[in-house]
Amino acid sequence: MLDIETDDMRRRLEHGTAADVRLAIRDGRWRGTTHALARGYAQANLAIVPAGAALDFMRFCLRNPKPCPLLDVTDTGDPEFRQIAPGSDVRRDLSGYCVYRDGVLVDETDDISALWRDDLVAFAMGCSLSFDAVLQDNGLRVAHLAQPGGRIAVYTSGIDCVPAGPFRGPMVVSLRPIPQDEVDRVVEVTRRYPSVHGGPVHIGDPAAIGIHDTQAVDWGKPPVIGANDVPVFWGCGVTPQAVAMAAKLPLMITHKTGHMLLTDLKVKALDQ
Amino acid sequence: MLDIETDDMRRRLEHGTAADVRLAIRDGRWRGTTHALARGYAQANLAIVPAGAALDFMRFCLRNPKPCPLLDVTDTGDPEFRQIAPGSDVRRDLSGYCVYRDGVLVDETDDISALWRDDLVAFAMGCSLSFDAVLQDNGLRVAHLAQPGGRIAVYTSGIDCVPAGPFRGPMVVSLRPIPQDEVDRVVEVTRRYPSVHGGPVHIGDPAAIGIHDTQAVDWGKPPVIGANDVPVFWGCGVTPQAVAMAAKLPLMITHKTGHMLLTDLKVKALDQ
Repeated sequence: MLDIETDDMRRRLEHGTAADVRLAIRDGRWRGTTHALARGYAQANLAIVPAGAALDFMRFCLRNPKPCPLLDVTDTGDPEFRQIAPGSDVRRDLSGYCVYRDGVLVDETDDISALWRDDLVAFAMGCSLSFDAVLQDNGLRVAHLAQPGGRIAVYTSGIDCVPAGPFRGPMVVSLRPIPQDEVDRVVEVTRRYPSVHGGPVHIGDPAAIGIHDTQAVDWGKPPVIGANDVPVFWGCGVTPQAVAMAAKLPLMITHKTGHMLLTDLKVKALDQ
Repeated sequence: MLDIETDDMRRRLEHGTAADVRLAIRDGRWRGTTHALARGYAQANLAIVPAGAALDFMRFCLRNPKPCPLLDVTDTGDPEFRQIAPGSDVRRDLSGYCVYRDGVLVDETDDISALWRDDLVAFAMGCSLSFDAVLQDNGLRVAHLAQPGGRIAVYTSGIDCVPAGPFRGPMVVSLRPIPQDEVDRVVEVTRRYPSVHGGPVHIGDPAAIGIHDTQAVDWGKPPVIGANDVPVFWGCGVTPQAVAMAAKLPLMITHKTGHMLLTDLKVKALDQ
């Protein structure tokens, strides 16, 4: 399959619609990450849980909207996100899935059709790829995108999420170093986008939220924090995965890092 | 009980906190409506359904955020709204409840302790009393509050809600006549408050959303629409009640009109 991931295909999908990308993945024409694909469309984190855990998972999202901004939830057993991605098939429209049993990663795959069951419920949550696009569209610097690899620094913080049933644990946060004189504007812009994590959860001293060494990341790459930069933290879409894994559900399926659900929502339209 | 509803008590509760009002109701010191009580605090619509219908009801709210802006949901069997009203007891903290069985109103009461069950889930949804406060705080006219009785015009519209399980039906909308030159500002202000219905669902010709005679209201009082006024429509908190009644749940409990849940949320803090 690797030979199909040509630069030409990437360029076409970068300028394609979300539906174009979903179809290319479904048809086996794309197996790469979704970074920069279908520009302007919101990408989403995916979590699939059995119906017995779905009400508590949905409560968890409602109670922790910054790390878990819920965009859509399927009907029980229905593999289509009918609101944000009409015509989608959540079993085959992502280029990478992680399968967890009892909280343990047991498989990575690009097709979960064989695992689908009538009692599964899929959740789509706003993701920070769209968030970075908002910052760039507003003329604001996104430091990690200028670094090799372009990966953001992510930490398990000392902030506790509000629990719901078996779902509980620390909030996972991302760090963006923001130039001192852009902090106010970054806060103002990001607050308007609650469905992609919204405003910061913390501004300034990392130790105040239990992060004692910013170079010791839990995910992603260590940040480059300039002398005039302020560390600013946002709720991160890794939170619901970390929390659901810790809950040791008999079965849970998520997107694989960087392999997101493409939604028909336009990032610009998420502005409130 | 009527003798306790003195002007003095009302004045005290108008300047009290949300918790003051909840306690006054719980202790039997207040049985009136909650209009203008605990100024500055958000009031909420209440719906209580059995756990078996709760996931679908929550989906319905997520899919129809304008009529059903979800503020909080209790754990199954827990009568306390722990996020928006810590210390509350949803069985006794409202001054009026409606009890429906199989979609039929069978009782109105001021205490549902005897009806409470381990499988009940309570939902709190943003309400337009708070919404009107937002308009007034921004120096905008709220026409119906200047009329005798102060009741807003409410209609069953021709707009279909997005269904979820047994919950489906038309969106109930409220009408506010807005002076032509204030429409833009009203839209701008209300969009920033998604948790109290957000921006309008329709601006202009009522017939376009199936309302052919604005004087024939379904709830509330007919509006007074001036020559320079534009009819502007918002999603209304009656929607989830109407939809849930139509779903003929074996048991559903709601607030009684005007007898809202007082929350600890400040209206100003709902700004996004």
